[in-house]
Amino acid sequence: MVNYHQRLDRTFAALVDPTRRAILARLERQDGASVSELAKPFAIKLPAVMKHLDVLDDAGLITRSKVGRTVTVRLSPEPMRAAMDWLRRYERFWSGSLDRLAAHAERKEAEARESDR
Amino acid sequence: MVNYHQRLDRTFAALVDPTRRAILARLERQDGASVSELAKPFAIKLPAVMKHLDVLDDAGLITRSKVGRTVTVRLSPEPMRAAMDWLRRYERFWSGSLDRLAAHAERKEAEARESDR
Repeated sequence: MVNYHQRLDRTFAALVDPTRRAILARLERQDGASVSELAKPFAIKLPAVMKHLDVLDDAGLITRSKVGRTVTVRLSPEPMRAAMDWLRRYERFWSGSLDRLAAHAERKEAEARESDR
Repeated sequence: MVNYHQRLDRTFAALVDPTRRAILARLERQDGASVSELAKPFAIKLPAVMKHLDVLDDAGLITRSKVGRTVTVRLSPEPMRAAMDWLRRYERFWSGSLDRLAAHAERKEAEARESDR
């Protein structure tokens, strides 16, 4: 069974490669694309693109369906939701006002003093 | 020079490992921690923790400062901002209403028909 942490591992691992990110970005703009359409912008050969699609598929970020000789690739964005939720906790560091940050730091210090007693 | 894509590569690569994510989560809750404090919850040896800290440091996600024999590790969350901004474009898939998704799909189809002419 793949747990929460393993799913996050796979999602982030899939996002490490710029070609895979570009494929996801393409599928975000265009709902469904053939493998050859997806491969076109890249200076890599089709088997290399297929390997990237395997990684994205294993991470649950795309689905592939075959009709005749054409494989259509679609975005399956759900795993990115957990990745974004994981990152969201750091959002206060850049979106929060300095006042809020200071208040947070003070609260944590107060908690630490409390737990030292 | 490290460009935008390479920085994103490094950020996502740093986030792949659950131990590194746990270290970042700890530093989110606690502003500044010693290496031994950070190492304590993990069933891995100190040199392994040091290697994880090197990866986080290379990705610009932590800073380390030494006073006497104590190294204090602090969170440097800025690179996560770009990672979150990258993921944000997919947010509409889960936060948007189905109506909005349908409208988006229709608009894209209309654009595609337009460009086929």
